[in-house]
Amino acid sequence: MTPTPMDLALEAARAAAARGEVPVGAVVTGPDGAVLAVAGNQVEADCDAAAHAELLALRAAGAVLGSPRLTGCDLWVTLEPCPMCATAAGLFRVRRVLFGAYDTKGGGIEHGPRVFETAANLHRPEVIGGLREREAASLLRAFFAERRQA
Amino acid sequence: MTPTPMDLALEAARAAAARGEVPVGAVVTGPDGAVLAVAGNQVEADCDAAAHAELLALRAAGAVLGSPRLTGCDLWVTLEPCPMCATAAGLFRVRRVLFGAYDTKGGGIEHGPRVFETAANLHRPEVIGGLREREAASLLRAFFAERRQA
Repeated sequence: MTPTPMDLALEAARAAAARGEVPVGAVVTGPDGAVLAVAGNQVEADCDAAAHAELLALRAAGAVLGSPRLTGCDLWVTLEPCPMCATAAGLFRVRRVLFGAYDTKGGGIEHGPRVFETAANLHRPEVIGGLREREAASLLRAFFAERRQA
Repeated sequence: MTPTPMDLALEAARAAAARGEVPVGAVVTGPDGAVLAVAGNQVEADCDAAAHAELLALRAAGAVLGSPRLTGCDLWVTLEPCPMCATAAGLFRVRRVLFGAYDTKGGGIEHGPRVFETAANLHRPEVIGGLREREAASLLRAFFAERRQA
């Protein structure tokens, strides 16, 4: 069975956890649904606080297509994007942002600064939250519970 | 005379304009004031909508210091950062954000989602706006005026 984009994002999140990174994974699919990029969070490995899964996947997809505009593409991610990544999804002009768990503390779409709702926002992707929510959230919960015990 | 960080950021902005990129430049200085990174906008050249000057300079400084946290460092930029770059400055834990021109349309600190004012925001750098404002703004005005005529 072909894995779905969210399967791949969850797999990338689990791989991030195994490397000691906060378990978030992201995938960008093209207008035809083909997978253009898959990435997991690698902030610590890259010494890069901006190396969130979403930003890495968006940048990789831009490189694949040879364009800073990902028209018609979708961003799939296991956690509600933070304001940095949500804004980046808009700058890359993605068609849809589909995410797993809601992030009441760090999220930037349904929470916090709600970046797409600002009057000056130029491009507002369609947003679908709560996909495989339990699975995505339990990965994060397990990671932080383990850290607290360590 | 040693150029100031804002001199270097303005120079990077002019170099960006010469490459056909929106003229924004950024510099990161360390706790001792030493220049760690200088970058200009290179969205088109990199096929990367996230290749804003600020994000490039922050990432480069993280690589120089070998850490995703730029504690005590300052981000200097010719234009008020967008919500993506403002959030990134917070994630990188910079001490101060010092910018030139205000961006009433695309800015994310004093305008739009005002990302540092969200209750859930974890790190709020000191913000100083309006440094060399006229010079920074006139670069942008000249660039867009030329584009409209082309």
